[in-house]
Amino acid sequence: MSASELEAYLHEHIPITAAMLLVVQQCDEAGVVLAAPLPPNSNHRGTVFGGSLASLATLAAWAVVHTGLRRENITARVVVQSSQIEYLLPATGEFIATCTAPSERDWMRFTEMVTRKGRGRLKLSVEVTSAGIIAAQLTGSFVGVQYDGDS
Amino acid sequence: MSASELEAYLHEHIPITAAMLLVVQQCDEAGVVLAAPLPPNSNHRGTVFGGSLASLATLAAWAVVHTGLRRENITARVVVQSSQIEYLLPATGEFIATCTAPSERDWMRFTEMVTRKGRGRLKLSVEVTSAGIIAAQLTGSFVGVQYDGDS
Repeated sequence: MSASELEAYLHEHIPITAAMLLVVQQCDEAGVVLAAPLPPNSNHRGTVFGGSLASLATLAAWAVVHTGLRRENITARVVVQSSQIEYLLPATGEFIATCTAPSERDWMRFTEMVTRKGRGRLKLSVEVTSAGIIAAQLTGSFVGVQYDGDS
Repeated sequence: MSASELEAYLHEHIPITAAMLLVVQQCDEAGVVLAAPLPPNSNHRGTVFGGSLASLATLAAWAVVHTGLRRENITARVVVQSSQIEYLLPATGEFIATCTAPSERDWMRFTEMVTRKGRGRLKLSVEVTSAGIIAAQLTGSFVGVQYDGDS
């Protein structure tokens, strides 16, 4: 799943990402980078709304797991179980969520749990930057649940 | 600030809330209740996108603090500092975020900190329900920072 394929998928299946004007800047083995402009995500103070920061960060991590499983042809759905976010500084312009792929060891443990037990859990961290500063940091737990068929 | 005033304020100043079709069901001394329909907030599985659940919950808590301070004529801006969210069950239709006002003791301690020290912090919990089940629970820390003038 390339960056443009992921972007089309998100805009089609999660319509609020189209309203956010979400762009996929990177989607490969190294990780996922998502960006969005300020205007549609602005708050009453002219900085980025916290909900949009959390949404972009959550999607970056979800996409790392989702596209990673597809790359290995593992048919599993990925759901976010919980997350924590620290809002460090206001984001004053375009904001960028970067989720680096987990270590090979963590990823192998996760995919083994999914394929052997039908269910695995993976913790990921995401950094959201804007104009060179770290605006927010999110840590989330994601669950992969294997299924049969092509649904 | 009535429910309809808060709704107009959010749609005007945080445009993503208009894209979410957010509705303010309640806004008074007892708390704030926000709702939104599934379609614009749907994910790839036909349930509510986690980012929309987190956004609605964050806004409900923010609104409790913001409208509570206005009610007492305390000129302070309110920002979310951190939050944790547990996603318990998929929300399959309209989703409703309820943030009950804090205890009088917690509220008085918060407003005293804001007016005396210029800055106070308040922790609030929000429940997001859908079709009678609890879909998500959010706990957030909000900071009130006093300012002079009418900005």
